[in-house]
Amino acid sequence: MFGKLDGTMEEMSKKVDNIPFISFIDSCLRGIAEVFIANNPVTGFFVLVAMYVADFWLGVASTVGVVVATATAHLMGFDRGQIRIGLFGFNGFLVGAATPIFMAGTEMNQLMYIIVFSAFSTIIMKAMVRIMEPFGLGAFTLPFNITTLIFLFGALSYGHATVGPLINPALPIAVDAVDTVTFLGSDFIVNAVFRGIGQLVFADSIISGILVFAGLFVTSRIMAFWAVVGSAIGMITGILLGVDQNAIYAGLWGYNAYITAIAIGGIFFILNVKTALYAVFATICSQLLAGAMVTFMAPWGMPVLTLPFCFAAILFISVGRTSNWLIPVNCSLTTPEEHISWCKLEFPKNGPSVGSVNH
Amino acid sequence: MFGKLDGTMEEMSKKVDNIPFISFIDSCLRGIAEVFIANNPVTGFFVLVAMYVADFWLGVASTVGVVVATATAHLMGFDRGQIRIGLFGFNGFLVGAATPIFMAGTEMNQLMYIIVFSAFSTIIMKAMVRIMEPFGLGAFTLPFNITTLIFLFGALSYGHATVGPLINPALPIAVDAVDTVTFLGSDFIVNAVFRGIGQLVFADSIISGILVFAGLFVTSRIMAFWAVVGSAIGMITGILLGVDQNAIYAGLWGYNAYITAIAIGGIFFILNVKTALYAVFATICSQLLAGAMVTFMAPWGMPVLTLPFCFAAILFISVGRTSNWLIPVNCSLTTPEEHISWCKLEFPKNGPSVGSVNH
Amino acid sequence: MFGKLDGTMEEMSKKVDNIPFISFIDSCLRGIAEVFIANNPVTGFFVLVAMYVADFWLGVASTVGVVVATATAHLMGFDRGQIRIGLFGFNGFLVGAATPIFMAGTEMNQLMYIIVFSAFSTIIMKAMVRIMEPFGLGAFTLPFNITTLIFLFGALSYGHATVGPLINPALPIAVDAVDTVTFLGSDFIVNAVFRGIGQLVFADSIISGILVFAGLFVTSRIMAFWAVVGSAIGMITGILLGVDQNAIYAGLWGYNAYITAIAIGGIFFILNVKTALYAVFATICSQLLAGAMVTFMAPWGMPVLTLPFCFAAILFISVGRTSNWLIPVNCSLTTPEEHISWCKLEFPKNGPSVGSVNH
Repeated sequence: MFGKLDGTMEEMSKKVDNIPFISFIDSCLRGIAEVFIANNPVTGFFVLVAMYVADFWLGVASTVGVVVATATAHLMGFDRGQIRIGLFGFNGFLVGAATPIFMAGTEMNQLMYIIVFSAFSTIIMKAMVRIMEPFGLGAFTLPFNITTLIFLFGALSYGHATVGPLINPALPIAVDAVDTVTFLGSDFIVNAVFRGIGQLVFADSIISGILVFAGLFVTSRIMAFWAVVGSAIGMITGILLGVDQNAIYAGLWGYNAYITAIAIGGIFFILNVKTALYAVFATICSQLLAGAMVTFMAPWGMPVLTLPFCFAAILFISVGRTSNWLIPVNCSLTTPEEHISWCKLEFPKNGPSVGSVNH
Repeated sequence: MFGKLDGTMEEMSKKVDNIPFISFIDSCLRGIAEVFIANNPVTGFFVLVAMYVADFWLGVASTVGVVVATATAHLMGFDRGQIRIGLFGFNGFLVGAATPIFMAGTEMNQLMYIIVFSAFSTIIMKAMVRIMEPFGLGAFTLPFNITTLIFLFGALSYGHATVGPLINPALPIAVDAVDTVTFLGSDFIVNAVFRGIGQLVFADSIISGILVFAGLFVTSRIMAFWAVVGSAIGMITGILLGVDQNAIYAGLWGYNAYITAIAIGGIFFILNVKTALYAVFATICSQLLAGAMVTFMAPWGMPVLTLPFCFAAILFISVGRTSNWLIPVNCSLTTPEEHISWCKLEFPKNGPSVGSVNH
Repeated sequence: MFGKLDGTMEEMSKKVDNIPFISFIDSCLRGIAEVFIANNPVTGFFVLVAMYVADFWLGVASTVGVVVATATAHLMGFDRGQIRIGLFGFNGFLVGAATPIFMAGTEMNQLMYIIVFSAFSTIIMKAMVRIMEPFGLGAFTLPFNITTLIFLFGALSYGHATVGPLINPALPIAVDAVDTVTFLGSDFIVNAVFRGIGQLVFADSIISGILVFAGLFVTSRIMAFWAVVGSAIGMITGILLGVDQNAIYAGLWGYNAYITAIAIGGIFFILNVKTALYAVFATICSQLLAGAMVTFMAPWGMPVLTLPFCFAAILFISVGRTSNWLIPVNCSLTTPEEHISWCKLEFPKNGPSVGSVNH
């Protein structure tokens, strides 16, 4: 639909490959897009704009994160092909973005930690890729989660770091029953769904959510579809379970949901009706995991970040591959549309038999 | 001893295999028996009766659990052979049984959660089987533990679910020294041992414990023996460590112990004197794990469920297989008696050399 | 430098191999040295002296631990070669040493637990070796950490065990900013570095630290170098992060640091300038992990033991092996000096290509 901007922009990637500075920027922008399991620098650029729109310092912090993490991978001599598609950038980007959200203190102080922990995230990424390999899985955003939690847990005992008001250790207490209907309205839905889309990268604003949506739309219309539908499913699950409506309103029940929907509904499986149903079930379950993890993290007052997505993705991808329902795709670095057209080309009549689509 | 009811009742299994409704019921009953690592519908029926005897709603809840979990496996198109021996039923059965114990609120409310989480347990079972495969191990009741903890942790933050009084988050505090002798008596021992046998399926009554014992007796006299002896070892361990005597009295120091004794003492190793000694050591260690996990779960007020058994079984089976003491059996789905007689048949004089008994 | 005492003392090992009592003592002393990834009975003897110097009962407790753990391995029929190099002793040694530090109560009471849990540590060691094998890694001191935490978590709920004042469950609270400069001085540095060296085996005294340093010097000058430098890096990291200065003063920011430095800087990689830089980065990161784990353990009031080292070692060894910077050594049971001279012998000009040094 968007011609050369569409899909993974392989042509452009090859063109800039020999220009060090430009290819580094391309790697970083692709790294930002990899948060959404997309490999497209234009998508990355849209997301980056969304960050600066939400908050200028959030934009700077996440930019530093992705640059340091990508540079560390170069410095360590890691595989250039993996660096070029952004595999070592996205965790650093998220470490950088998480810092102004959960930490207080001067910007210079935060910056020092962003540099150290973004570099650290690249090391953890490399190790996680190795650990997940025998299971035929990627690392998802686990390295970001692990690195950020090492930072935030540690920060509570560092005199030279100041945690923000969101970090608030307390024993969990049972939540009282809530009235689900009264607070539902179009304002609530727009906030829950679109701030939810932005929340995956800590860009807590409706406009940022729309920018992220637009960025995804460039790479893949299917991914953009799941962004809205997945975030809405998360919101509905939260309402049905009766969780804190302020959290739903702020989009906190949307972000893990929609990235799970994207992963299952087109990236790791070829999209068809059965895949869509499975993706909806996976999305609901990602929110059950989120609810459990909120309680688990309470004694340290820590955020669940994107751990619910990581666990749900690992679970439902592993299981889906063994089911004779679904057509798995083992290479996850292209778009749902390309997966579908490839599948039609190879198996023009009845579709492939299970397990045969490994390119 | 019981003729056709004895062992795994393979004949009956084949007979009903083509009658959809009956074979489904057979799968569910075998699923109930699989909690005890037994594959026998009569054992399952005894256990089911024990549930209704302990508490009618407990019986209903666990029945719904096993039915939904088994049906989900059919719906997902999982391996029919595995469904038929009950592999996808037992986790749902336990999820269903745990719900009335730890949750309050209306029965309809509990029912909704039982349906969702029993279905979820089947997904988690499938994933766990895959994770454990490279280690040559099964999933034990890990999927039940994981699913139930996702539910109970989450329930604390759901406005539309009410946790019961057993869920009581508090920081752990050191227990004072207790007098071990005064509370020992025949009433204490009968309660600790037989309620302990029932507690594995949350059937907290002496009669239920006896019914479970009877059910195990049908499948295997050795398993029934370990049920009593293992539960007693757990009780003694608890007394020696000086843990809360009310917990011991209620059988809470018996249930992880005896299922560990059954697993090590005949199912995963061919029973002989050395195996028996090893099973006793494993049983004691399962209770050391239980004591540690009680403290670990305190900040969330969560139960340890059968995690101590799972960890002890994984540990002692893995290690036992590398020892030249013990004769491992790699297929775990038949009875201790059959393992012994098979071993005598194949190695009439001196028994097999280590590692050779993999059928 | 020390002739026959140098390195792994293979000659002596062979000489005593057929004398049961002497070879058992040799196994135990090598087990003590294995805490430092050294395989040398003289080093073990120095460390043992350091224990008795720090505190007599600490010496007895750790001696009982190493003897019981090694004897259990014999009793279980585990691989004699592994027993002889001390692989089943070091975890029991540390379990024994940890007991007087964290537990109160009579010595007889502590002794009973040391015997049970030292034996248990051997079982857990065997299982951990198997779990780590597919990743090409050893178990490090993970079995000690797991066993001791099972003991200490459990002890809070045992009426017949008394935890000491160091076990103090409380929700984590954010630490205030500290003035880093005022408390720095030579007294501070000597305490932080040398008590840090002793703290790895819970020998909290400067003299013990010097004795451990001397013991390491016998096996390897490079290991002794990293002991001091690594402990100092840990201290500096703690000061920069602004953590509790009493903890730094007591050496608690040194012990995980220097053992990480030893592991990365010569044992698992051939030492050169790049390896040294990588070891320094790994050492800093081990302390970031330590800071995080201190917070994580707060709700149960539990110590982090050597978990930060274990995680840092697993992480940086796994990643280092995939980098084209570093020359990995797959056999970890000899000294850094031998690794270097072996490397020079085999690849006299340019050093080996990556991944080729597996002997």
